[in-house]
Amino acid sequence: MIAFGGNAFQRKGEKGTVENYWKNARQAAKAVVEAINLGFRKIVLTHGNGPQVGVLLEWMEKGEDVAPPMSMDIAGAMTQGWLGYILVQTIHNELARHGLLGNKVKGVVAIVNRVLVDKSDPAFSNPTKYIGRYYTAEEAAKLMKEKGWEMRPDPRGGWRRVVPSPDPIDNIEKEAIKTLVENGWIVVASGGGGIPVVANDGMLESVEAVIDKDLAAEKLATALGVGILVILTDVDYVYLNYGTPQAKPIHRMTVTEAKKYLAEGHFKPGSMEPKVKAAIRFIDNGGLEARIGHLDKAADVLKGVSGTIITRD
Amino acid sequence: MIAFGGNAFQRKGEKGTVENYWKNARQAAKAVVEAINLGFRKIVLTHGNGPQVGVLLEWMEKGEDVAPPMSMDIAGAMTQGWLGYILVQTIHNELARHGLLGNKVKGVVAIVNRVLVDKSDPAFSNPTKYIGRYYTAEEAAKLMKEKGWEMRPDPRGGWRRVVPSPDPIDNIEKEAIKTLVENGWIVVASGGGGIPVVANDGMLESVEAVIDKDLAAEKLATALGVGILVILTDVDYVYLNYGTPQAKPIHRMTVTEAKKYLAEGHFKPGSMEPKVKAAIRFIDNGGLEARIGHLDKAADVLKGVSGTIITRD
Repeated sequence: MIAFGGNAFQRKGEKGTVENYWKNARQAAKAVVEAINLGFRKIVLTHGNGPQVGVLLEWMEKGEDVAPPMSMDIAGAMTQGWLGYILVQTIHNELARHGLLGNKVKGVVAIVNRVLVDKSDPAFSNPTKYIGRYYTAEEAAKLMKEKGWEMRPDPRGGWRRVVPSPDPIDNIEKEAIKTLVENGWIVVASGGGGIPVVANDGMLESVEAVIDKDLAAEKLATALGVGILVILTDVDYVYLNYGTPQAKPIHRMTVTEAKKYLAEGHFKPGSMEPKVKAAIRFIDNGGLEARIGHLDKAADVLKGVSGTIITRD
Repeated sequence: MIAFGGNAFQRKGEKGTVENYWKNARQAAKAVVEAINLGFRKIVLTHGNGPQVGVLLEWMEKGEDVAPPMSMDIAGAMTQGWLGYILVQTIHNELARHGLLGNKVKGVVAIVNRVLVDKSDPAFSNPTKYIGRYYTAEEAAKLMKEKGWEMRPDPRGGWRRVVPSPDPIDNIEKEAIKTLVENGWIVVASGGGGIPVVANDGMLESVEAVIDKDLAAEKLATALGVGILVILTDVDYVYLNYGTPQAKPIHRMTVTEAKKYLAEGHFKPGSMEPKVKAAIRFIDNGGLEARIGHLDKAADVLKGVSGTIITRD
């Protein structure tokens, strides 16, 4: 299972044009080719969607005289279509270019994927995830009253909407994904952490929240029984004392070491912390190995010569 | 295979709110429950996306200072996420309510689905499908120059962008859909006629076009070998002399009769014509029966007591 970070489609300094998207997706596609060449046969991919959901929410807000804006869960579903399409098309072509289609892999398919969260998750009474654009205090007061949004001052300046980031419990479409993977398909799933839903008397209901994509990736990877969880992001390694003069890259650590470092507060919440948590959960749930490395060194991370490797004890 | 018309999510007079979408989708969900109760076991669904693609293109245009607008193929992919999510969630709940989940059906899954068209299709040199909003002649002249759009005066007033409506050749993800259907999944696919792609030296490339959703549904239905193609729209029956005092609903016709009526010009291009064409192709390609009827009478259409039935000779 390979999880592509939020930077996979929109790199720093880019405007986020259609051309940027197609070009950046090739990096992901090359990682998939590398994985196949290394002998991996069951491949599942996931991706972040932070920048794209933000953009969609703003587009809808600006265009609300055109049509009523859709809710956040629907915006998330739209990004699964958007990024799923770009990924499957780019990977399909990269596989075709390397003669790997039909031969080793049947194809690539992206699915609309929901992830179950617990409606009594404490995150719902303490929303922490900033989404969408920045507002003035006056605008924020108005929106909180009119739309019932929870809003807070963002440390980076201005007021922003905050939504809960509950823990993923289950992947709703996991059995369908499993069926596809076992039949030779590379599957793009759980995009943006999945569309969050809660269960109410057996009914699934939409909920306005954001699930961490790496924790959601772990749930799916564990459900599918894949051996390795690879998290690709914009740093080369997991670091001890990151951001200090004592910063030290970790090349290899056991799950017990990872838990110790996590407890010691080495990893930044909302950034490296959930990635290391996902790695720990993956191994605790029976996974063989987790790796965290740089998207641009995906081939080396897959080979195990770059990035941090988290192993069983 | 059941094809839901463009009216399935947004009814006349509605504003198109999130609540409208969830409510309208229940009609589609009830049709699926009816199909299962009638004994159908392999069920594939498709849907139109005309209003939603139009809205998305306008949102992106109005918000182009937020981020560069995405292309039409990506907008189509977004609607597959949007409507696919609403459909799977609503159908899932309706199946659960009737105790049909797990028992007769494993679940419902929506996929991002591309449809192959021929780059030498004559439609590409004669774009006819109006999309997006209405512009003045001056605005149109500017857009044609700046964005390279083809634009024409719409008979309903104003200038609009026109895009090609090429014939669908193949469904790219058909084998994945088949695998899911054969393993007990209801699949939502080919949404909005599918995301159109052309093949260039084995590479799939995006193309700005709109594929008729009923013709695309036929391609998929035929590829899957399902017995019945059901097209649900906003009229009760296919009519002879539609819109005239001699208008007469057709309850049953053979494929040869359908071809005769089609040649005689009984069916409105862009409206009933492609539906009857899809029915004819379906039967010519080995299908058992096609039905065309009203979405609100879906149960009766499925039972065969409402709507037009097109049979083999």
